[in-house]
Amino acid sequence: MPRTPYDLTRSYSLLERARKVVPRGVYGTRSVEFAVPGKYPQFLREGRGSRVRDVDGNEYVDLMGAFGPNLLGYRHPAVEAAVREQAGRGNALTFPTELWVELAETLVARIDVADWVAFGKNGSDVTDYAIRLARQHTGRRAVLVAEGAYHTFHPWGVPIPTGVPDAWRAHIERFTWGDADSLEAAFRRSSGDVAGVLVTPFRHEAFHDQALPTPEWVAALHALCDRHGALMLLDDVRAAFRCHASGLSHHAFGYRPDAICYGKAISNGQPVAVIAAREALRGAASQLYFSATHFFSAEPMAAALATLRAFDEEKAFDAMNRAGEAVCAGLRERAAAAGFGVRVTGPPTMPFLRFDSDPEFRLSRSWCGEMAQRGVLVHPHHNWFMNGSLTPEDVALVLDVAAECFGLLRADAGA
Amino acid sequence: MPRTPYDLTRSYSLLERARKVVPRGVYGTRSVEFAVPGKYPQFLREGRGSRVRDVDGNEYVDLMGAFGPNLLGYRHPAVEAAVREQAGRGNALTFPTELWVELAETLVARIDVADWVAFGKNGSDVTDYAIRLARQHTGRRAVLVAEGAYHTFHPWGVPIPTGVPDAWRAHIERFTWGDADSLEAAFRRSSGDVAGVLVTPFRHEAFHDQALPTPEWVAALHALCDRHGALMLLDDVRAAFRCHASGLSHHAFGYRPDAICYGKAISNGQPVAVIAAREALRGAASQLYFSATHFFSAEPMAAALATLRAFDEEKAFDAMNRAGEAVCAGLRERAAAAGFGVRVTGPPTMPFLRFDSDPEFRLSRSWCGEMAQRGVLVHPHHNWFMNGSLTPEDVALVLDVAAECFGLLRADAGA
Repeated sequence: MPRTPYDLTRSYSLLERARKVVPRGVYGTRSVEFAVPGKYPQFLREGRGSRVRDVDGNEYVDLMGAFGPNLLGYRHPAVEAAVREQAGRGNALTFPTELWVELAETLVARIDVADWVAFGKNGSDVTDYAIRLARQHTGRRAVLVAEGAYHTFHPWGVPIPTGVPDAWRAHIERFTWGDADSLEAAFRRSSGDVAGVLVTPFRHEAFHDQALPTPEWVAALHALCDRHGALMLLDDVRAAFRCHASGLSHHAFGYRPDAICYGKAISNGQPVAVIAAREALRGAASQLYFSATHFFSAEPMAAALATLRAFDEEKAFDAMNRAGEAVCAGLRERAAAAGFGVRVTGPPTMPFLRFDSDPEFRLSRSWCGEMAQRGVLVHPHHNWFMNGSLTPEDVALVLDVAAECFGLLRADAGA
Repeated sequence: MPRTPYDLTRSYSLLERARKVVPRGVYGTRSVEFAVPGKYPQFLREGRGSRVRDVDGNEYVDLMGAFGPNLLGYRHPAVEAAVREQAGRGNALTFPTELWVELAETLVARIDVADWVAFGKNGSDVTDYAIRLARQHTGRRAVLVAEGAYHTFHPWGVPIPTGVPDAWRAHIERFTWGDADSLEAAFRRSSGDVAGVLVTPFRHEAFHDQALPTPEWVAALHALCDRHGALMLLDDVRAAFRCHASGLSHHAFGYRPDAICYGKAISNGQPVAVIAAREALRGAASQLYFSATHFFSAEPMAAALATLRAFDEEKAFDAMNRAGEAVCAGLRERAAAAGFGVRVTGPPTMPFLRFDSDPEFRLSRSWCGEMAQRGVLVHPHHNWFMNGSLTPEDVALVLDVAAECFGLLRADAGA
């Protein structure tokens, strides 16, 4: 029996209210315009484990995971308990707490290539740090980043540079992710002035098939950095904890970064971002100014420590990888059964689905919209995020709804 | 009977550990180097109301208020309850909660000059937004900011620009805060290309006497902005809720800003920053890209709503203003009694004390260090922050310790 599409009356009435007091209403990756207006909820009431409930009372298996943070499941008991315990002592205080040291020590022990860390809030805080670090260490100015890659909402790399003067985007050279010749050409264009290459461990920008690195790409990237004395800066903000059981994406692909940026999933929902780097960069780091009001708050430190512990103890990577593999295989099969060719790219923990011959994402939007309308949150333009709390029942529900939605598309196409 | 100076063994042993895993150990405004090494604690165990306890068990009346966030008192019951209630539903979710809309509506209703808002995490997120907004709206590039004023840790305005190429600091023109001729000259230097003036409501940079605006300065600032078609962008991140019972600093001083930045105190310790602006800027705002993983998290929204309610209900501004006036008057008197001339500048809620004839802050560091050693956290280089939970007993203790510490300085000077 076909499912009844969800009623989203309250979500869209709240969105109308929001549009009066916020330009465009909800902005950025959270806007329904980025997904499918009218089909997705815009406001949620709560989350628990792998599920969320919206303000109209509809329940969803949420494969978007808050765009990354939901690593272990919403309101993971151990993380919740750690945050609550720290909340009983305070969050923002005049000086940091002992947890701040413990987290730094835990990360330095965990991240093999790192001898030190520093903490910010947003991923953009630490990608900025990585760039300044490379420039200060090398005395050079240019940073190479992949065309289309997302690293920051700050002026130098914001994807839509409205309100940004050209000068504030100087010294950023673009190359094609995964293309050694293109990277070499970018080095040549800034000959002798390249401070570093800032790169994601795999290709995961929005509106694009994802791509995993080949060993040849990894080797060429390091050879070029070595030859030109440039630093290899890994932006692992989005992918960390979803590429390898250690949590560290460079272990999955064989990178040897000089500095790594983390954020999103590291504290299962509390805001903390991390720059981690080698001993050789400590001198340059000591000369950087890096400070903001909430950088030292204690609750995110407590959350990160509890998240790292639970991630290991619960073998959360294996759990989300298994769930992701089942989802990806099942989606390919359900799509084929309905007569659709699809490409499911990226690691199974962060998949992205596209339909063949759908350059404008029309089929994607239709299918994802119908999925949302029937209780599964995936995304037509952005990779998804698995989490460690997904159950076999969740996976079965996702695939069942998927089959129904591929069927709806087929019926539409036939009509 | 003189007080026994505090033992800080555990703080400094933790700092030794921190220095192994974080460049310079604790960095930025939280570093003991910014205060007085050896005299200040570096790690705190907990906060409650106006008091904090360090990891060695020493208690302090904390007049630094976490560098701003502590508006109502640490772990304010109503704010704590609101955060705990939201934590029972979730923090970072795939879409925002209804609280996000409620907070936007509450702020637009509260801030007379604002017709819309948007939310970030750090103050620097929204000062960046203000600059992009002005540039997008005017089609111009230059932004005028006061020499020495702190607005951001991002490349364009970071106080120590190590690792930042010159181009990334282009189009920023400096003027002397409060000096209309200097501002006019800055307009002239970027003739026809000034998008806006970003300015704090009063002068409150570190290492400097504070200064309140004169009506002449306010009038000249607006006249120049009007004449040149530039926007008046108020950076109220540090001063908001401590200059006027409405919480809005422009009410205290008569500014009519086009856009205002908030942060720090607005949620009593949870991370949220706000850009608020006029209807005329909505079109430009709609064209800006502004997004980050934790921008939509629910706990800070719950905290801000509860903070605004409690701030009004408890008349927190009046309370902290009374406490601040008593502290400022008492400090002047205790200093004079010990034969010291001091200048206590800024609003009573955000005072800063300097000794006469102490250009290198040596007396300041000695006095503040002894204060910390005896249970009062103030700062030799940065303004202080009063909060609404300060009791007459707190004020009496502060002044009693202050008298003892002025006496110690006098004995040293006489020796």
